[in-house]
Amino acid sequence: MLAEAAVPVNRAPQTTEPPMSLQKPALDPRGVSALNRSGYPEPYRTRVLPREKRRLGDALGLTRIGINHTTLPPGKESSMRHWHTHEDEFVYVLAGEVVLRTELGEQLLSAGMCAGFPAGTADGHQLVNRSDRPAVYLEVSNRDSADTAHYADPEVDLVFSPAHARGTFTRRDGTPL
Amino acid sequence: MLAEAAVPVNRAPQTTEPPMSLQKPALDPRGVSALNRSGYPEPYRTRVLPREKRRLGDALGLTRIGINHTTLPPGKESSMRHWHTHEDEFVYVLAGEVVLRTELGEQLLSAGMCAGFPAGTADGHQLVNRSDRPAVYLEVSNRDSADTAHYADPEVDLVFSPAHARGTFTRRDGTPL
Repeated sequence: MLAEAAVPVNRAPQTTEPPMSLQKPALDPRGVSALNRSGYPEPYRTRVLPREKRRLGDALGLTRIGINHTTLPPGKESSMRHWHTHEDEFVYVLAGEVVLRTELGEQLLSAGMCAGFPAGTADGHQLVNRSDRPAVYLEVSNRDSADTAHYADPEVDLVFSPAHARGTFTRRDGTPL
Repeated sequence: MLAEAAVPVNRAPQTTEPPMSLQKPALDPRGVSALNRSGYPEPYRTRVLPREKRRLGDALGLTRIGINHTTLPPGKESSMRHWHTHEDEFVYVLAGEVVLRTELGEQLLSAGMCAGFPAGTADGHQLVNRSDRPAVYLEVSNRDSADTAHYADPEVDLVFSPAHARGTFTRRDGTPL
């Protein structure tokens, strides 16, 4: 009845969802804080942000696999086209649709479809949301401290080195961005 | 990644789904043959079968992570309660609901909920479908040839040894089942 009803002070903003009651090892992804950040320098950064990543694996105490629950708004890209040296990657679309770009070309992945990228296979991949609604997907990988990523599109002048977890981005010739 | 040994058997019958047009690295899970098999001896075998497992990770050429798309009929159990020594496990419910049994007790996981089990944490887990419709979930793990599984329910007289991938099941005292 009022524009400012009695709202408990410490709660997160109300949604239409019920409160979360699951306890670890169970987890409701809606209870995990969404991160909206990228290690990319410009001009790549604004191609991927804003987006929401919920680190489900971290929230569950997993260290050998990484699991992100990601919401990609219309017009945004999951990453630049890349491949990993030591980490398998897997993507499963939960809602909406994304365009998968690889050497094969473009394929449309709708909810229930998936894709997988074996470590060391030099075929860069990227998801692009060309639809008018958010796309939601799970992204999964093993974790390997020896891993690094290579970027596949010639116009993406990006190198990540020396290692994936702690590296920094430069241009391909090593100069800063 | 599984609590059961890989036992080659004939493939399950084809489904009624139409042919898929996606090409690797993309994949429509409906185009992957469903396996209905278990390495468990009785009386555990009939507690988990029939069920459908689609090995998405294998179909995509992934070797460092395992990804199964599993359909568990009403009344069936995902596995006996167990935990892994060297493999993180993650489950995401896609449709229906399952009861997660751990040391904490029972929690109901509906579509969109998940759970994670860090390697080496001695808290056995199991999913049970107590509903009247099939439950569908993704199960994910890293793969580690040193992995083995331990069974947590006292009435489950089961040991898997010596190694996860190629081991066999016996009773806890080592005698055959």
